[in-house]
Amino acid sequence: MTGTTTTAQSVSTLMAEIAAIGTDAARGGYSRPVYSPAELELREWFIAAARRRSLEIETDRNGIIWAWWNPAELPLTDAVVTGSHLDSVPGGGAFDGPLGVASALSAIDILAAQDLAPTRPLALAVFPEEEGSRYGLACLGSQLLTGAVTPERAAALVDADGTSFAELAARNGLDPRHLGRDDERLSRLGCFVELHVEQGRGLVDLDTPVAIGSSILGHGRWRLSFLGQGNHAGTTLMTDRRDPMLAAAATVLEVRRLGRTVDGARATVGKLDPVPGGSNVIASRVDVWLDVRHDDDAVVAALVTDIAAAARERAAAEGCSVTLTEASMSPRVDFDPVLRGRLSTILPDAPILSTGAGHDAGVLKEEIPTAMLFVRNPTGVSHSPEEYVEDPDADAGGHALATVLADLITQPASPDSIP
Amino acid sequence: MTGTTTTAQSVSTLMAEIAAIGTDAARGGYSRPVYSPAELELREWFIAAARRRSLEIETDRNGIIWAWWNPAELPLTDAVVTGSHLDSVPGGGAFDGPLGVASALSAIDILAAQDLAPTRPLALAVFPEEEGSRYGLACLGSQLLTGAVTPERAAALVDADGTSFAELAARNGLDPRHLGRDDERLSRLGCFVELHVEQGRGLVDLDTPVAIGSSILGHGRWRLSFLGQGNHAGTTLMTDRRDPMLAAAATVLEVRRLGRTVDGARATVGKLDPVPGGSNVIASRVDVWLDVRHDDDAVVAALVTDIAAAARERAAAEGCSVTLTEASMSPRVDFDPVLRGRLSTILPDAPILSTGAGHDAGVLKEEIPTAMLFVRNPTGVSHSPEEYVEDPDADAGGHALATVLADLITQPASPDSIP
Repeated sequence: MTGTTTTAQSVSTLMAEIAAIGTDAARGGYSRPVYSPAELELREWFIAAARRRSLEIETDRNGIIWAWWNPAELPLTDAVVTGSHLDSVPGGGAFDGPLGVASALSAIDILAAQDLAPTRPLALAVFPEEEGSRYGLACLGSQLLTGAVTPERAAALVDADGTSFAELAARNGLDPRHLGRDDERLSRLGCFVELHVEQGRGLVDLDTPVAIGSSILGHGRWRLSFLGQGNHAGTTLMTDRRDPMLAAAATVLEVRRLGRTVDGARATVGKLDPVPGGSNVIASRVDVWLDVRHDDDAVVAALVTDIAAAARERAAAEGCSVTLTEASMSPRVDFDPVLRGRLSTILPDAPILSTGAGHDAGVLKEEIPTAMLFVRNPTGVSHSPEEYVEDPDADAGGHALATVLADLITQPASPDSIP
Repeated sequence: MTGTTTTAQSVSTLMAEIAAIGTDAARGGYSRPVYSPAELELREWFIAAARRRSLEIETDRNGIIWAWWNPAELPLTDAVVTGSHLDSVPGGGAFDGPLGVASALSAIDILAAQDLAPTRPLALAVFPEEEGSRYGLACLGSQLLTGAVTPERAAALVDADGTSFAELAARNGLDPRHLGRDDERLSRLGCFVELHVEQGRGLVDLDTPVAIGSSILGHGRWRLSFLGQGNHAGTTLMTDRRDPMLAAAATVLEVRRLGRTVDGARATVGKLDPVPGGSNVIASRVDVWLDVRHDDDAVVAALVTDIAAAARERAAAEGCSVTLTEASMSPRVDFDPVLRGRLSTILPDAPILSTGAGHDAGVLKEEIPTAMLFVRNPTGVSHSPEEYVEDPDADAGGHALATVLADLITQPASPDSIP
């Protein structure tokens, strides 16, 4: 195993290699669901790129790809890990996920050109189903690795085509019986640094290309079910109605109004299901899905309480009722303060930003110190074709990551070390 | 062929026979899609009931069942037709459709007990897919019979399970090549009187059990597509959003506000589709389906114009745009004034009511004089388990229908006759 490669590649050059994979003509942008032909093509691209860099490649029992850079042939323990994911949301951008993978590959080239004496091995990781866009469960790969999701629950997940995750995993060379927490794998890992395109406008406002992540906002998902009186849209007088769609619509506006009263909060309705959902039928029920996020979990809870009160008032005004159900609540995640402090020392100009999005680094934080780097997105738009990174910023991100990794892999590998 | 039956049955007794067929435990009420096991069982029930009354039964090439009562063995021309449908919407009531069929059977018993000298034959008809709940096209049977829908279009319709109407028709004994306008069948028909549960509260307010129909409101369906900026629900600040869900919600409230300003109008949003529809994604597009009805087609058009203006204003306020597309527009249908006048003479106490719902009588009106009778629904609710008819009212409806039919079948069958 050697740590050299014939030609060093910049992040922007690597991103250009995959610009045509998984484009979505209908939605715009990219649709790269996990294990789709597009995502499999990206995985092949990553493996070929890792091979060219003489990395040692393994796919673990949860479908995570690991590519080891270990020129000093150190024992595979206390490893520094970097990487991200290759899957996308439907009609997503080019950078969410692949930027972190391309930056990891480019960082290897930068490191290989230096005269380093590593004390820790380095691994590049590609996590499957980070977006949860195929099976509805974000960070499925890292959640399986750590046991945050049980293998039974994961295996039973079914995609929109009726394919279970167990079936899909088997079709892609995994043994569904061996999914789940992997203590042997986890015992090799020392820390994880994930580079990601920024999903907001923080770096645009600060006029700088790279930031260090501080935390992931506490966030949750709730269902507000409005119950009214199903009826005929043609025969029911306007005055005789108990239409839950009206209560739902009024509540959607309240969600925005209340969300705006709390500094730093996000409150969104992106999904709304009328039942039966016929255009000529007054709905009997409308389910409104509420997404609320804030840096402070208690503020999330208080905002949801206020929204629920507003929903009850709007429902009563229409002769309807409403119930609130919590679908999920992920408390705020603080990245490891020691590792983050180290990154601030290495990158003194990088500002500190929190993020409203979940990441594999948030899941792995339960096992090892984790940190994130964010790269400027001039549109601030995410999960959309308009997400963007300029080439110089992508390359600056790759260099920042290489600088961080060079420092971490040459740290002494003792239990008391940082980190 | 005889016109007698051993035991006369009231409408309420006949309705009790089918009370257990096609109940829907999940939705409540009844789900009896066309050619489902439930609807087929109802068809068998009708055929058995018609056989007991010695009626001559045929199923025509469009799947309409015809049961002839012709004790005088008259030529099968200028027939008086009554009947309705047996299919229901999902989770519908017991009466919408079957009440008209049961009333027709009970009317035969009442007629058979009288000393009549018919001059015209009488036919009971059961029309398939009146609700359009399986193939999305209401009054499919009568529209095929008259040619309002081409057989090619009908054959190509596909249900939610992927079964084409051609395939389903073949499976139920029809030849898909012979669907479509049936001139020979139409040439036998003289007029059509359809009895139906009222789908509003007109008769409740008037405190009387049976009304005569005047017209079907002009009604149409439009799609308002709101376009905004798809984005991440967690990372996008509340102030950085162009969220089409907010424009859509504000417009839903405007639809009700504007609908209420016009006397007799109905304006409904029962279907609303966010795209991509993820709970953690700010929608990039929201489609709002608008149903507007009024006695005066020009009022419908003016109301839609006002709603579109309000939608544009709401979209602009959110930094979004909106487009309006007409999906369908059915002009007001006036039932035959001569036949309606005749019914008013026969039933002098029956008030005249219009309806907001489409019916096979509205389709057949293009070919022959048609009329409707409505029976009181104490809840005023329709397309819902709460739709209801009390037994005495059901029986009063059956008697009113028999009175009308007795008069019509003893009218002289000349071209100048009524009707």
